[in-house]
Amino acid sequence: MGISPEAFRKLQARVQSPKRRPEPLNGLPPQPASLRREVVLGIDPSLRGTGWGVIQRQRGTVTALGFGTVHCAASLPRSRCLVRIADELRTAIRAHQPTVCAIEGLFFAQNLQTALIMGEARGVCLLAAAEAGLEITEIAPRKVKQAIVGFGGAQKSAVGRMVQRLLGLAEPPQADAADALAIALAHAQDRSRPGLECRRPL
Amino acid sequence: MGISPEAFRKLQARVQSPKRRPEPLNGLPPQPASLRREVVLGIDPSLRGTGWGVIQRQRGTVTALGFGTVHCAASLPRSRCLVRIADELRTAIRAHQPTVCAIEGLFFAQNLQTALIMGEARGVCLLAAAEAGLEITEIAPRKVKQAIVGFGGAQKSAVGRMVQRLLGLAEPPQADAADALAIALAHAQDRSRPGLECRRPL
Repeated sequence: MGISPEAFRKLQARVQSPKRRPEPLNGLPPQPASLRREVVLGIDPSLRGTGWGVIQRQRGTVTALGFGTVHCAASLPRSRCLVRIADELRTAIRAHQPTVCAIEGLFFAQNLQTALIMGEARGVCLLAAAEAGLEITEIAPRKVKQAIVGFGGAQKSAVGRMVQRLLGLAEPPQADAADALAIALAHAQDRSRPGLECRRPL
Repeated sequence: MGISPEAFRKLQARVQSPKRRPEPLNGLPPQPASLRREVVLGIDPSLRGTGWGVIQRQRGTVTALGFGTVHCAASLPRSRCLVRIADELRTAIRAHQPTVCAIEGLFFAQNLQTALIMGEARGVCLLAAAEAGLEITEIAPRKVKQAIVGFGGAQKSAVGRMVQRLLGLAEPPQADAADALAIALAHAQDRSRPGLECRRPL
């Protein structure tokens, strides 16, 4: 089988071009993945109490850069809660400059209405992360507990204590923030997880 | 029962202050509600095909200012779809300056996963409307069909034809945009409906 002159020219150009190597950063050679700095934003979305936590992993050490809970009183209209969630997440992203975002994936909901409302909060969280250009990964709650406590059915308090220990915090964070930090920690433990960007949506 | 000097002073101030009247706009006396211009943004949220439509009601005449569908191919990651939905709705809001937003309320979903994904799209739509300062009302799909076609179980095509007729359009709009226009029309028909802002969220 022959080769067209056009295809030949393309092949020749590829063979003659210099090999692409990763560019050194600040004049230094590229670091191995294990030493590279990674800042992970973990989000545990919920209409009345979205938890968020930002951790930094560098040279095998993990530290908390910031965490908190977006509190929305039961009297606050739903649309106002969504605005507050978006605002506070955008502020956290600006302050801590995460590079990736990990969010709770499959979950349990009592009924369709609850799932819809939970989805609304989740959509706003995903939007804030995607608009900031973050790579987004989802992790099932059970997997998070398994990664942090070693048991998928672990109690919330056990997750909080383990998060406190792993990050060397003075006290366990508030439950929603602790869950978000646990999601970020679980993500940092395993970077081979397929992201939302790779998965074909349902 | 006596009255405290503080309460007396407050009462006196109220009695002596001039009565508050609605301020005339552009030097003209205020118009009755039926003559006032109202611009309604209707939204039919969905991850792959969010419909939107803006109508204007003034002096008993209803006209379409603009409508469209936010198409997201099945290959587009979920977070990218949400960004596109928010972008296109913000553009529509800037272009047509609606004063209120009507969105589909209670709905049917096959399972929790579908409800969650539908909720994500809905959350982003609510955020775009709330951040633009719009008053938000939700209407059940059945009520929309009842208001437009006179029958809650009407076919999609019947809704499209009725929307075309009511708005004097050259042809029926694409199905998702027609649904959004139907939501806006149903809202314009009944302004006494309780809004999302008034309802206590679940």
